[in-house]
Amino acid sequence: MDIKQALTALHTKIKAIPHKGSRASYIPELSHVDPNKFGVFLAHLDGNGCGVGDYQEPFSIQSIAKVLSTTLAYKLGGESIWSRVGVEPSGTAFNSLLQLESDLGIPRNPFINSGAMVICDILISTLENPKEDFLAFVKTISNNKSLKYSTHIAESEKDVGFRNIALCNLIKSFDNLDNSPEEVLDFYFNLCSLEMTCEEAARLFLYLANDGLALDQKTQILTLSQSKRINALMQTCGFYDESGEFSFKVGLPGKSGVGGGILAILPEKFAILVWSPRLNDKGNSYKGMLFLEEFTTLTEQSIF
Amino acid sequence: MDIKQALTALHTKIKAIPHKGSRASYIPELSHVDPNKFGVFLAHLDGNGCGVGDYQEPFSIQSIAKVLSTTLAYKLGGESIWSRVGVEPSGTAFNSLLQLESDLGIPRNPFINSGAMVICDILISTLENPKEDFLAFVKTISNNKSLKYSTHIAESEKDVGFRNIALCNLIKSFDNLDNSPEEVLDFYFNLCSLEMTCEEAARLFLYLANDGLALDQKTQILTLSQSKRINALMQTCGFYDESGEFSFKVGLPGKSGVGGGILAILPEKFAILVWSPRLNDKGNSYKGMLFLEEFTTLTEQSIF
Amino acid sequence: MDIKQALTALHTKIKAIPHKGSRASYIPELSHVDPNKFGVFLAHLDGNGCGVGDYQEPFSIQSIAKVLSTTLAYKLGGESIWSRVGVEPSGTAFNSLLQLESDLGIPRNPFINSGAMVICDILISTLENPKEDFLAFVKTISNNKSLKYSTHIAESEKDVGFRNIALCNLIKSFDNLDNSPEEVLDFYFNLCSLEMTCEEAARLFLYLANDGLALDQKTQILTLSQSKRINALMQTCGFYDESGEFSFKVGLPGKSGVGGGILAILPEKFAILVWSPRLNDKGNSYKGMLFLEEFTTLTEQSIF
Amino acid sequence: MDIKQALTALHTKIKAIPHKGSRASYIPELSHVDPNKFGVFLAHLDGNGCGVGDYQEPFSIQSIAKVLSTTLAYKLGGESIWSRVGVEPSGTAFNSLLQLESDLGIPRNPFINSGAMVICDILISTLENPKEDFLAFVKTISNNKSLKYSTHIAESEKDVGFRNIALCNLIKSFDNLDNSPEEVLDFYFNLCSLEMTCEEAARLFLYLANDGLALDQKTQILTLSQSKRINALMQTCGFYDESGEFSFKVGLPGKSGVGGGILAILPEKFAILVWSPRLNDKGNSYKGMLFLEEFTTLTEQSIF
Repeated sequence: MDIKQALTALHTKIKAIPHKGSRASYIPELSHVDPNKFGVFLAHLDGNGCGVGDYQEPFSIQSIAKVLSTTLAYKLGGESIWSRVGVEPSGTAFNSLLQLESDLGIPRNPFINSGAMVICDILISTLENPKEDFLAFVKTISNNKSLKYSTHIAESEKDVGFRNIALCNLIKSFDNLDNSPEEVLDFYFNLCSLEMTCEEAARLFLYLANDGLALDQKTQILTLSQSKRINALMQTCGFYDESGEFSFKVGLPGKSGVGGGILAILPEKFAILVWSPRLNDKGNSYKGMLFLEEFTTLTEQSIF
Repeated sequence: MDIKQALTALHTKIKAIPHKGSRASYIPELSHVDPNKFGVFLAHLDGNGCGVGDYQEPFSIQSIAKVLSTTLAYKLGGESIWSRVGVEPSGTAFNSLLQLESDLGIPRNPFINSGAMVICDILISTLENPKEDFLAFVKTISNNKSLKYSTHIAESEKDVGFRNIALCNLIKSFDNLDNSPEEVLDFYFNLCSLEMTCEEAARLFLYLANDGLALDQKTQILTLSQSKRINALMQTCGFYDESGEFSFKVGLPGKSGVGGGILAILPEKFAILVWSPRLNDKGNSYKGMLFLEEFTTLTEQSIF
Repeated sequence: MDIKQALTALHTKIKAIPHKGSRASYIPELSHVDPNKFGVFLAHLDGNGCGVGDYQEPFSIQSIAKVLSTTLAYKLGGESIWSRVGVEPSGTAFNSLLQLESDLGIPRNPFINSGAMVICDILISTLENPKEDFLAFVKTISNNKSLKYSTHIAESEKDVGFRNIALCNLIKSFDNLDNSPEEVLDFYFNLCSLEMTCEEAARLFLYLANDGLALDQKTQILTLSQSKRINALMQTCGFYDESGEFSFKVGLPGKSGVGGGILAILPEKFAILVWSPRLNDKGNSYKGMLFLEEFTTLTEQSIF
Repeated sequence: MDIKQALTALHTKIKAIPHKGSRASYIPELSHVDPNKFGVFLAHLDGNGCGVGDYQEPFSIQSIAKVLSTTLAYKLGGESIWSRVGVEPSGTAFNSLLQLESDLGIPRNPFINSGAMVICDILISTLENPKEDFLAFVKTISNNKSLKYSTHIAESEKDVGFRNIALCNLIKSFDNLDNSPEEVLDFYFNLCSLEMTCEEAARLFLYLANDGLALDQKTQILTLSQSKRINALMQTCGFYDESGEFSFKVGLPGKSGVGGGILAILPEKFAILVWSPRLNDKGNSYKGMLFLEEFTTLTEQSIF
């Protein structure tokens, strides 16, 4: 079956399914997004791509951006960063604080909030102008030269982010932050505020399907081994306490965000980005999960 | 590079590395095994294969057998079994009992002890003569028609398995066992007592590299989708609280046992079995982990 | 106000309050008890006493018996027993198994199930004929020479006691039991099966109001210091995760049982036993708690 | 034996015991205190009192001040405050954050840090000028009209109080604070910075030995019932995860602070304050605990 046809057919089918779940309501700005938005874009390694639905509309990629911060920290710091943050799945949300305590302040992986904060701390200590330099890095591997942080979303998160403030101070109390919790949280909330379209995001993350090589086929963003390892991390840790479920049903490395976006990678083939704002009770896009499950079943394309 | 050469070179290199860790001592019988044993066998889908070192010597496959019990339960029970046991990684060993409590007796996945017990319970309820029928199933997909349970290893585990008895009774207290803890534990300890050589085991598990099809290319042991899902489960849950590490460094779905064996699968290509009895502090074979990491780095073969 | 009048007035008032809660249903035998039973007996140090309601009817004292086993183990073993079991409250039921793990198998106190099992283990190792000798000890300090274990209640608990079996094996796995879990559980279930009337129990426990001296004023059951310490333990640990609440509202050291009995002690003054089978959601007698709260408020008698 | 003689003899004896433990080092200011200070003052209900050693030297009472904040909140808010904070012991420090999560942001009791923060929040919402009004309240029941917050200690705690900031924000995330975490923490750190002498503190807390009545015998600070209940809370929750141990060995309601002070109350009799800066590994004064244990053993005065 033709990919374009498959995407269109599935988009139509799943759009018709009654919505379940609701938008992330704890971040005020996200609760204003039209919950019926539904876009998909698949970017091929050969430069081609195809989109369906609202794939050209910018949305808040939220935690998907943690793949970018981890990429830059890994690129700059090499294997040394794994002494500050682990590579293991975290089990349940339920015991996140307990786990941080029993692990003496070393977060389980860079994709849970605590781990992403430690990555932010590493970047702050490494970059001269952290927020500007990180943005510049993302722009170089993106087609979107006008990319910028969404100040109102970052502020919106800050106002209600008591749990994140708690996490960040707990890590600091274990001496696993070099910078102040305020600086780390400021970077963290800005990182999560990035907005782009399904198409921009799918193309941006193609380097993970391309052994670390940028779209231009010239810039080596990550080494082959590093690129595979980021995929491995997404496979085991990309969906909080639904990581096993996604791996089980979809069979691709991926990363979700509470804005309703899901990124998935088929190494050597493509990157795909699905966006639908309503979340299931694990905080992942309800229709996004469904779409990707049916897509890999239909096309029989998975890493397994 | 030729596979045979790669295996031999790595075997020589890693054999020379000073041993770390020690044999599983809590099961008396396992502490009698020669700790310097070191065997590898790689079985190709085309029927070829090659081995190095002690690959023709039988060893206790222990938890690797949980892949077989899960396979048979999945084959017989279909998706319904996932209401009794989850598909999520478990985080740390540290909180296993807590997790079972907060999850109301539903183990996180079929590869941790509690989950394997629930799978045993399902098989006991489904099979007429559980232990005999399960053994017959394994024989039909194996070249080893003389396979049998190792009574002295099973008894050896029973005598000291207070923690497993605790786990099993805790699951029962949550009403997630249909049979008595005694029956479930008897099946469980026998399951873990299976012995085979690296070659036998690598060939036995080839169905997971072969989309669920047996070696004879005729018997469909699992459907394509089921086979991929077992691989996905091994990817996220195959190495207890070192599952992320294995995925990160080796990049293949796999399963370890405290006997020192590690199984890994490259879908559509091969199954490999490494055996070296000394364990690291997470309970996985120290040299087995090392061998597979270097092997996939050298051959650039991983699912990512 | 006269004590007899106070008891009668409160008994009438609280009997009229609509029942809340239900009998312990997990022990089949206890669910057959008439839920409307309601008895109180207060025994004075001077030998006098007065009862109201069903105070002459035998009931299953259940965990109240743990005060007796702790008394005998303390008497025989002295302070050394506190290396095997702690003297701290346990926080919530919720984390009991986790706590036992983090405390490496040393139960928090002798009144939670795990701690009572360790006390049973100590008695089994110390006494020649544990069950007989313990019963003989209780008879010597009791007026009830016909006291015996209730076999059908002990058996009833054994049949459904999966969680207790789990706890006991977990302690054994930490090497904090000298005897087999089967022996310990057998003693434990028999201990909890003792039956007596409110009057018998109140008189039996008078030694705790009498600085350790038996009713006959001759036998020193515990030393002064030991007796005070058992009271202190009841004060902080006697009511599972409602110990603080009882201390806060009633202000007396005490111990409850799932049979619906509650013992409370006013040092140098009296022992009181209230029995009403319906339990609140913490597993303590609903009307028993209410009665004692109002009783100490009315009589302004508490240790504080 | 005469009380004065007893105090002096014990002070001499315990002063000679080699020091164990060390000063609270996480609060920089406290690590400058002379670790050999050792003072005791016992204040009788009849107005008499006697002191030994450094009983007239001001020290930081730290968490002992939580008894004062709880007293004022209870006086002003009545029983309603117990819907915001519990009356149960907390088990171990180990699971404090986990417990707060499982209890949905309701701290276990007003004497652990999280509970004291909720009490501060209640006072901030109730008082017009919280810090000034609270100080005025303490002055009215104290002989020390020059009492003031120690700004340098409060600041010293703020600078390193990452764990307390984490706790406070976690409570806020559960919606159990009406005011901002910054305001609550500012009050909290000031509360804990109060300094007074053993004599001042012992006399100040006499109302808890006096059924809630102030020293002047005219002002009812708390009702009889409230006063008993504060004592009950100290008995079960006054010493973090050593509350059971203190109750067991000393047998009096009390409260400790990391400045090395310990308050204990014998209802209807006296209040005693011991101060020695070196702490045991539970965070309670090493010699303070020892002194009080020997004192109640010697004088046979306990509530049990």
